[in-house]
Amino acid sequence: MLYHASVLVFLKEGVLDTQGKAVGAVLHDAGHAEVRDVRIGKYIRLRIEAPSLEDATRSARTVCDDLLVNGIIEEFTVDVREEDDA
Amino acid sequence: MLYHASVLVFLKEGVLDTQGKAVGAVLHDAGHAEVRDVRIGKYIRLRIEAPSLEDATRSARTVCDDLLVNGIIEEFTVDVREEDDA
Repeated sequence: MLYHASVLVFLKEGVLDTQGKAVGAVLHDAGHAEVRDVRIGKYIRLRIEAPSLEDATRSARTVCDDLLVNGIIEEFTVDVREEDDA
Repeated sequence: MLYHASVLVFLKEGVLDTQGKAVGAVLHDAGHAEVRDVRIGKYIRLRIEAPSLEDATRSARTVCDDLLVNGIIEEFTVDVREEDDA
């Protein structure tokens, strides 16, 4: 079975997001004063071949823990769904 | 009112995702052959001050169209919610 995993990676709350601050400043200068805060993370989409949703989820989490996410400064969420179209 | 906008930016389907390909190759070499495809995008969280959800959504879309998203090669989705905690 093929599964789609959507992974959102973002900096932990206390970690300074320099990229977000820079983008926020640009938006402010461009007249978007209504934007109060910007934080920028990563959105990773994985296609995973696995026998079950549980296996696909475990695989996605392992890949994140081992390779894609720096657990010291980042956190992540994983949402795995069955691929509906062939 | 304060609103949270979650913006997902990703490359359009036909556009070669070199970063995703590179990460996919690394995962493969690291023994994760079950991961068939990787695509990498951006996850942007905005806090927006606006009088209504509609205004916040319009503001988020404007910011994306004008500055955050390259409409030639990227697409985006926006999800806006009221900030539940003070």
